[in-house]
Amino acid sequence: MKYWFKSDNTSAACPEVMDALLRANQGHAAAYGDDEWSQRLDGVFADFFGRSVRVFPVSTGTAANTTALAALTPPYGAIVTHEYSHIVRDECGAPEFMTGGARLLPMPGTNGRLTRALLERALADNPTSVHTVQPAAVSITQATEFGTVYRPDGLADLAACAHARGLHVHMDGARFANAVATLGCHPGDVTWRAGVDVLSFGATKNGAIAAEAVVFFDTDLVRDYEFRRKRAGHLLSKMRYVSAQLLAYVETGAWLRNARAANALAQRIGEAGSARLLYPVEANEIFLKLGDNAIAALRAQGFAFYDWGATGSGEARIVVSWNQSEADVEALCAALAAPPTESL
Amino acid sequence: MKYWFKSDNTSAACPEVMDALLRANQGHAAAYGDDEWSQRLDGVFADFFGRSVRVFPVSTGTAANTTALAALTPPYGAIVTHEYSHIVRDECGAPEFMTGGARLLPMPGTNGRLTRALLERALADNPTSVHTVQPAAVSITQATEFGTVYRPDGLADLAACAHARGLHVHMDGARFANAVATLGCHPGDVTWRAGVDVLSFGATKNGAIAAEAVVFFDTDLVRDYEFRRKRAGHLLSKMRYVSAQLLAYVETGAWLRNARAANALAQRIGEAGSARLLYPVEANEIFLKLGDNAIAALRAQGFAFYDWGATGSGEARIVVSWNQSEADVEALCAALAAPPTESL
Amino acid sequence: MKYWFKSDNTSAACPEVMDALLRANQGHAAAYGDDEWSQRLDGVFADFFGRSVRVFPVSTGTAANTTALAALTPPYGAIVTHEYSHIVRDECGAPEFMTGGARLLPMPGTNGRLTRALLERALADNPTSVHTVQPAAVSITQATEFGTVYRPDGLADLAACAHARGLHVHMDGARFANAVATLGCHPGDVTWRAGVDVLSFGATKNGAIAAEAVVFFDTDLVRDYEFRRKRAGHLLSKMRYVSAQLLAYVETGAWLRNARAANALAQRIGEAGSARLLYPVEANEIFLKLGDNAIAALRAQGFAFYDWGATGSGEARIVVSWNQSEADVEALCAALAAPPTESL
Amino acid sequence: MKYWFKSDNTSAACPEVMDALLRANQGHAAAYGDDEWSQRLDGVFADFFGRSVRVFPVSTGTAANTTALAALTPPYGAIVTHEYSHIVRDECGAPEFMTGGARLLPMPGTNGRLTRALLERALADNPTSVHTVQPAAVSITQATEFGTVYRPDGLADLAACAHARGLHVHMDGARFANAVATLGCHPGDVTWRAGVDVLSFGATKNGAIAAEAVVFFDTDLVRDYEFRRKRAGHLLSKMRYVSAQLLAYVETGAWLRNARAANALAQRIGEAGSARLLYPVEANEIFLKLGDNAIAALRAQGFAFYDWGATGSGEARIVVSWNQSEADVEALCAALAAPPTESL
Repeated sequence: MKYWFKSDNTSAACPEVMDALLRANQGHAAAYGDDEWSQRLDGVFADFFGRSVRVFPVSTGTAANTTALAALTPPYGAIVTHEYSHIVRDECGAPEFMTGGARLLPMPGTNGRLTRALLERALADNPTSVHTVQPAAVSITQATEFGTVYRPDGLADLAACAHARGLHVHMDGARFANAVATLGCHPGDVTWRAGVDVLSFGATKNGAIAAEAVVFFDTDLVRDYEFRRKRAGHLLSKMRYVSAQLLAYVETGAWLRNARAANALAQRIGEAGSARLLYPVEANEIFLKLGDNAIAALRAQGFAFYDWGATGSGEARIVVSWNQSEADVEALCAALAAPPTESL
Repeated sequence: MKYWFKSDNTSAACPEVMDALLRANQGHAAAYGDDEWSQRLDGVFADFFGRSVRVFPVSTGTAANTTALAALTPPYGAIVTHEYSHIVRDECGAPEFMTGGARLLPMPGTNGRLTRALLERALADNPTSVHTVQPAAVSITQATEFGTVYRPDGLADLAACAHARGLHVHMDGARFANAVATLGCHPGDVTWRAGVDVLSFGATKNGAIAAEAVVFFDTDLVRDYEFRRKRAGHLLSKMRYVSAQLLAYVETGAWLRNARAANALAQRIGEAGSARLLYPVEANEIFLKLGDNAIAALRAQGFAFYDWGATGSGEARIVVSWNQSEADVEALCAALAAPPTESL
Repeated sequence: MKYWFKSDNTSAACPEVMDALLRANQGHAAAYGDDEWSQRLDGVFADFFGRSVRVFPVSTGTAANTTALAALTPPYGAIVTHEYSHIVRDECGAPEFMTGGARLLPMPGTNGRLTRALLERALADNPTSVHTVQPAAVSITQATEFGTVYRPDGLADLAACAHARGLHVHMDGARFANAVATLGCHPGDVTWRAGVDVLSFGATKNGAIAAEAVVFFDTDLVRDYEFRRKRAGHLLSKMRYVSAQLLAYVETGAWLRNARAANALAQRIGEAGSARLLYPVEANEIFLKLGDNAIAALRAQGFAFYDWGATGSGEARIVVSWNQSEADVEALCAALAAPPTESL
Repeated sequence: MKYWFKSDNTSAACPEVMDALLRANQGHAAAYGDDEWSQRLDGVFADFFGRSVRVFPVSTGTAANTTALAALTPPYGAIVTHEYSHIVRDECGAPEFMTGGARLLPMPGTNGRLTRALLERALADNPTSVHTVQPAAVSITQATEFGTVYRPDGLADLAACAHARGLHVHMDGARFANAVATLGCHPGDVTWRAGVDVLSFGATKNGAIAAEAVVFFDTDLVRDYEFRRKRAGHLLSKMRYVSAQLLAYVETGAWLRNARAANALAQRIGEAGSARLLYPVEANEIFLKLGDNAIAALRAQGFAFYDWGATGSGEARIVVSWNQSEADVEALCAALAAPPTESL
């Protein structure tokens, strides 16, 4: 393929991260998180978010999401989430596995967002009763799987409803930086200030090699988290290397630079395809109703991307990486702008 | 601490691995193992072991061991293993978690090794009956947690007994390279040729950053392994970086060079402490009966290592890393050779 | 309460069952199913269904459903079912627990029935991929939770689709007798002849004390079922007492007499409330749109029943037991026929 | 077989229990424990034990033991117990399943009893560390699987040690009545007064059909127990029938009469075989070192019993039921007293 728009997972790591990795590779360091890099995480993330936090690195987004959810949800519990969330569609039942069999309650929601009304519907449908799974957590995705973002007030409304009903709030932030870049807000504004209790803070897609962090804003919820992480095989022995990635990502500002770069290019593609947009472009993903012929034509020109929607819907998902070249984007914009031809 | 002998987990990554990581960090690559590095793994490991294999990278030894065991053991199954194995003592119940509740059957065994007789005892104690857990796998560690190794004939005897009774054989090879370096054999001689069905091939301790591979010699056993790995959060999105480590580790010969370096230094320490050895030194670990005073004195001199055995046993575990300095080892040998002083 | 229409779970056991229990209570008998009653189950059920079967008694419907599903579904699997099925709404996540974390895929379906089209939709939504849960079973309820029944051809169509896609078919037959009584068919016609692989055969609601049977028509699927049942605490030591109930229930014809009695009374209630029926009355349950005032008035007169639908929907569920008195039913019919008064 | 000494599980139910069952079989009753029988359990058991309790009926001993343990032990927890306990040897991994993967720590102990010293050894071997399973409960069996009993002071010593270390204490009381009959104490003396937090109170072996109760003395520990019971399929819909058995068993004094009858006959067998006793006879089980020839001869005469110990050990387990006939016991005593013949 000439042009990679399949996923930000296909991108390389950014120089800040690679430099940090090389610098961390000196001599001996204590294992399992007792190294100096890992020991700095809580402090650096506290500065980043503007309040004290507990931070636990893991190496995949699925690990971050599902160990976090296991800290919030008992085996007979349920997790209210959007029907297109990653935990519903892309983790092969990892949430069920990690929680010991809790249930996801997938809700439909416009533009990929959960709302207070949807949460209330899920709660009404699963009342307090020994016969029913018990809603224990809400999991939202920021930016969403539709490339949109939650604004602080929408989040706060949802989280307030959750808390009032005794549920905790988890945020899947695999593309958290992209969301913050769009919103132009402080990272705390769309997390703990809006009621998020635990965040899966993603760095992998946006410039790291394999580095995600489970960030507890409500540090009381940490409880037995460390046992659960270990038991799932997610306590890294040479943790310094993951921690060094996370520190570099945050401290150098790479998180925001990378996200802004991807978002800006996504906007250009969104403009080029504006007549065919399925959802507003608010992060680094663009969803287009192109038709099957146009999709085939784009692929024939070397553009790699995934289908979206049901088979035959003619919909496409375009993801822009932090290191996407301008040339890639220009080529795609041109292709989208070209008058449909017979072959297209 | 001046001298690090706590664990080979405290070592840095070797140059061959770091170079490979940097070279892999170019442009886009398919995610989740469809990249060119990951696609080469099966072939490179087939050459390494001398037969066709299936190879699945993960980022921790616990993940390798327990996803492998989950492929071999049903939830009502049992795993016969040494009472001091890593899966018994150092994984916080991860085998139970990953298998859905199977049981470990820990057996005592001289010098850390399981034997046919011990296996038969475990089997006799857990007969075929709906009331009892059903032995389904044997898990052995090479090199063992006592720093000893299994020789091909001992392994073959044990594995033949296991297979005759319908059990599969797993090897925890967190220090596999150290064992092969000692034995001077072909990697196939102490794995598939001796009856091992699945190997946790460790690279992390011996020069990688975070790279382990589950190697199936009996490829029929792969079955649903990929679902289980994904579901446990161990399918890496940017897998190229783990695969690149594994390829470099094997293809450059770093695996053997690193292991030989560590083993040779371990021999020197073993000789210096020969009068106080608990077990033969056959890999990169040395276990010494020093007495609590001597232990305290060594620590006061800056030597970092773990206690061994029961509290007050006066036993110590010394682990030599691939990049241990000669100076460290000389200092330790000198300290061990020094006449016991009052403070010692 | 004067009139019990809450559930057939509130009914007593029928004389045939109680007599059998007393007769079984003589002297010693082998435990855990090696008794003469339990040993007769396979044969008696083979006669009942018209083909060889394997039968495993348990003491609750949840145990029957979920141990059966665990035999069909791996931990990363999924079970397509109606969104109002008992396994979705009334078992507190027992299917997830018993399978080791499989997922239910709840589908909407007119009158409580799943269809081939719904199954195909669920399958399209969960393709073969390591990222997604893998549909492994379909679970249908006969009679449905809406008091309707599947006819043989509808079942066969659904099951053929399931089998063609590699899924197994489970039937929750908590009210199986009521369905067969309505259909007037042979028990084999709506089970194995229509493609059902495993049936939860319920006797408790229809005249037993606590007696359900997991019936495998595809006896290859038994595999490790007995280990799973034991491990879940559902292997009864004095099994003769459950088996005696099941034998009496089947051999005396009580199953059909009891079901016919309940169904006939349900028809009378359905006629009395015909203008307000939510679904056709095809078994022993009647669902009525009464309005909240009428519901309150009925309760004030001593009628006990559950609300149905969302809060404020004014819907009611009436369940007729095998031993419901004619007087109860006449009183209810009269109350339903009475002109709505102010208080009503 | 003419003489049943295999297990008290082979016995019939006692008249008091059967009468209660018949009396409970009248008309409708609320389901799932809201019936009048179930509602009386807490009060009746409070009188029985001399303090307020919470009581939850289930239908098997495995269900009682393992749902109780799941209330006490997290998935990464461990349960210290005797190596011959029922939960170790006879439940096919149900404790692991019900707890979500906790580990049993089986300890050897003279005459089937755990001691403070053994508990301390298990704790020393599993220190507080994220790498290790965390001891959370002690489970003891009263009467033990060796037919011996714990005396109040031994229990209290063990429980005090457990509580001091943050562990909870579970008692498997499958033969609780036999133990109390031997000790001649108040039921409270060997449970809550000695530090037991949760008891599996068995009635099935000693005169019921299928009736066990999980009794929480520390009612704070109930927490989410009801969700766990339901989710495991152990919430009975027609619970009145189990509750009626339990009430009759306790209120009529059948529990003690039945246990005394069995114990008295066991004493006679113990005297007849006194020269060959493996353990003191303190309940209704007798363990004898007979030799393989004598065992074969007894079986040839129609005595049914299980082997004990390792294959070829020539050991036998004799269990006396509450309704064992004097004639059975006399025949066995005579056979044991007979001079060994050639065939014997």
